Amino acid sequence: MMHTSSSQDLLATLSSPQTRAPEPLSKDTLNANVIEAEYAVRGAIAIKSAAYQQQLREGKGAGLPFDKVYQCNIGNPQILGQKPMTFFRQVLSLCEYQDLMEHELAPQIYPPDVIARARDYLANIPGGVGAYSESKGAVILRKEVAKGIAARDGHPCDIDNLWLTDGASPAVHYMMKLLLRNDHDCILCPIPQYPLYSATIKLYGGTLLPYFLEENAGWQTTLAHLQEQVHTARSQGKQVRALVVINPGNPTGQVLDRENQELLVKFCKQECLVLIADEVYQTNIYAAGKEFFSFKKVLMEMGPEYKDSVALVSMNSISKGFFGECGRRGGYFECVNFPTAVKEQLYKLASISLCPNLSGQICMALIMNPPKPGDPSYELHTQERDAILSSLKRRAELVKNTFDSLEGVSCNPVEGSMYAFPRLTMPAGAKEAAAAEGKQADFLYCMELLDHTGIVTVPGSGFGQEAGTFHVRTTILPPESDMAAVATKFSEFHQAFMNKYKKNGEA
Amino acid sequence: MMHTSSSQDLLATLSSPQTRAPEPLSKDTLNANVIEAEYAVRGAIAIKSAAYQQQLREGKGAGLPFDKVYQCNIGNPQILGQKPMTFFRQVLSLCEYQDLMEHELAPQIYPPDVIARARDYLANIPGGVGAYSESKGAVILRKEVAKGIAARDGHPCDIDNLWLTDGASPAVHYMMKLLLRNDHDCILCPIPQYPLYSATIKLYGGTLLPYFLEENAGWQTTLAHLQEQVHTARSQGKQVRALVVINPGNPTGQVLDRENQELLVKFCKQECLVLIADEVYQTNIYAAGKEFFSFKKVLMEMGPEYKDSVALVSMNSISKGFFGECGRRGGYFECVNFPTAVKEQLYKLASISLCPNLSGQICMALIMNPPKPGDPSYELHTQERDAILSSLKRRAELVKNTFDSLEGVSCNPVEGSMYAFPRLTMPAGAKEAAAAEGKQADFLYCMELLDHTGIVTVPGSGFGQEAGTFHVRTTILPPESDMAAVATKFSEFHQAFMNKYKKNGEA
Repeated sequence: MMHTSSSQDLLATLSSPQTRAPEPLSKDTLNANVIEAEYAVRGAIAIKSAAYQQQLREGKGAGLPFDKVYQCNIGNPQILGQKPMTFFRQVLSLCEYQDLMEHELAPQIYPPDVIARARDYLANIPGGVGAYSESKGAVILRKEVAKGIAARDGHPCDIDNLWLTDGASPAVHYMMKLLLRNDHDCILCPIPQYPLYSATIKLYGGTLLPYFLEENAGWQTTLAHLQEQVHTARSQGKQVRALVVINPGNPTGQVLDRENQELLVKFCKQECLVLIADEVYQTNIYAAGKEFFSFKKVLMEMGPEYKDSVALVSMNSISKGFFGECGRRGGYFECVNFPTAVKEQLYKLASISLCPNLSGQICMALIMNPPKPGDPSYELHTQERDAILSSLKRRAELVKNTFDSLEGVSCNPVEGSMYAFPRLTMPAGAKEAAAAEGKQADFLYCMELLDHTGIVTVPGSGFGQEAGTFHVRTTILPPESDMAAVATKFSEFHQAFMNKYKKNGEA
Repeated sequence: MMHTSSSQDLLATLSSPQTRAPEPLSKDTLNANVIEAEYAVRGAIAIKSAAYQQQLREGKGAGLPFDKVYQCNIGNPQILGQKPMTFFRQVLSLCEYQDLMEHELAPQIYPPDVIARARDYLANIPGGVGAYSESKGAVILRKEVAKGIAARDGHPCDIDNLWLTDGASPAVHYMMKLLLRNDHDCILCPIPQYPLYSATIKLYGGTLLPYFLEENAGWQTTLAHLQEQVHTARSQGKQVRALVVINPGNPTGQVLDRENQELLVKFCKQECLVLIADEVYQTNIYAAGKEFFSFKKVLMEMGPEYKDSVALVSMNSISKGFFGECGRRGGYFECVNFPTAVKEQLYKLASISLCPNLSGQICMALIMNPPKPGDPSYELHTQERDAILSSLKRRAELVKNTFDSLEGVSCNPVEGSMYAFPRLTMPAGAKEAAAAEGKQADFLYCMELLDHTGIVTVPGSGFGQEAGTFHVRTTILPPESDMAAVATKFSEFHQAFMNKYKKNGEA
């Protein structure tokens, strides 16, 4: 090391020959995996809708054919007016402002079980919500989540296998980072899929190996097709590391039959795959006769041959239940049958980001341990929950029925989650017009839908779909008071779109 | 696709020859970059300290030589008893529980400026704290942060260049993911450095190109050495993409002279490097005559030749000011002179994680827009701030003086941030004993310090240091009431360690 000459002198001597020329910051000099990753849920249509909203907020929307933007592109209930659960917010507000808990007026504002819960958390979270917790989450909160998992499944959960997170996304990032070594490594993903998977697989340099859900069989999975995909990939020198399953489905809204879940477990065992179970919609089941079973429960009840050997990651989120606490960012993942040495690497990845936010951690614990019968908050909490869930059920039916009434549209039932994914028969003119702009016909459809009605959706091509088919994903989340208007606008637009692009003679 | 045979039949026919055998989940089949990444701040010593704490909490600490664990390994003020800032927490608690804002008792609990601020935020954040915001952060909060940056620097900040984040870490992840294409791509990092940098560079497959800070010159940077490092790397076919600077320093506690900052800007211009400025300790300056200048301000005042061309990322965090809101996870980064196409890629990366948590976003806005003279909360807020900062200043001096009084120890002044990084002359016996366990001598020192006193620190080897030197990083954060005890325990341990490992004749 030279540390002697003055800096001014040295700036002047920077003329030595360089083997490699500097490359300025530009799109051309970035990591190609970033450039190639796609995330349609917040893509061009979402960006344009934000501009419309800004225009309307500033009172400059006079020239627009709508006076309101309906955000049906993303599961974000509270932005559409859904009220948060009172119990959760009461506990959280006390945890934020500890002095209020000791205030003489507190008992006039908060029920005693709220105060007791907040007191218990703050007494057991070292430093409270303003201190970094352990990287896997505060112990008291992990214990509550573990108890909730055990109560749900009838099987214990060890907090050593449990990580609290900022939403479900970090779990997916960790798993992809951990499992993918190069582009020979594949992850089996359902198609259609939530684009978090395609995006992270691309970002971390792996390959998405698709398995197509059967639309005609209610978006269930067939084993023969899975086997074909894996064997073909292996014969081409690829390695298959994991299988992603989203249940209840996104964007497809199905609830898997338990038999179908068992098949997936057996397949993972046979092919030595990690089972990545995205179960973030587990509280949202609408269809009669359908029930949510966690893959943890299914696995634990399949006998020692499976329960002690299939590696499973089960993910949950505070964003995606009926309560919809999206902006807080909270979640968990539980690892089952993971070798200790692998869990140590997961711990290290979590520790590099220090810890998940405490407010999200607390909300996750509240969700997994809500008020019990007899608690002062029980009645109101139960009323609020039932009102949201029964309304969602009505909206699920209304949305499906609306789509089924449209020309060239068919829609599977919305059994769970918060999305409908209707299939559209695109007129030839729409395909041609889209192709002329280098776009898919469903992108054209969703963009025109936005421009004409203010309704924001996501084209099926953003999730993947069988070649030649077209879909639109919409949430079922607009409040019931808006639903009739949304349905009418959608129907009118659809008919106009069909009329515009149908060619002479097209049925 | 085959969708015909029954699943039971197909499980039986899984005997086709496979080109590539399945690889089970094990440490050996993971991404090597994950395995090789290191993060000492939460490494073996931190993990052991958590076990001691648990032991003490459970009343099983009778056999331990200490009755309290002193967490000096991580900048986490509130876990050590520092009270949160009242104004911040009051606003946050109202934002959590909107009904309370309308409650008739609210004015008896909250000052009017708190209620007004919360009302303003909730009226302008669509959906409140429970809804996903825009991926770069809610517009009203970005505007407040931008105004705070402009007030700090005397130069405007465009909110299009501003991303709110969950702490400063996501900015570092994004930049590394974006810039690093393969291990030929290098990032210039100060040594010693905060291991977030070494860890993320390794995770994303790049190469850390060190530049050594000059301990004898108060940890400042010399241009000659920087040039030598870059030119050597280039001549070996490496590409250098960015330079990281941490100011005030971590783990080294220095505050860079403005001349030194200008040198770094000129160097980045000349070598076509992105300047990544980690400025998370900007509120914590203790040394007389020292002042914090953001790299944004320095750059903007260097004339058009620089101010319009040097690409800069300036990062801040709610965790690392005097207020220490670590557990909430909030921060921002501002990009200057970034091409639009690159900012679009940054937007996409942020959107894949949906949005940063709203509580952290709000806290960042509160920090950048605190109560003003005349506001009802101004006096209390100012008292609380000054009390923390003056106490930190006293502790910074006490810690340095304690280290300087120990045999074989020298310590640069703690000019800013919250760390001391004293240099230790290790006795030969300590080096031998450590080597016998495959460890560095400073790791041995820190582990024995923990075992004997309950004081948790991080060995210098976790940050990087010049070969043959040894350091320990400790925070200056234990409360003043504990400080005398910590200093005494540290001094007694140090003398015992030296006596244990010094060999006959060693000075």
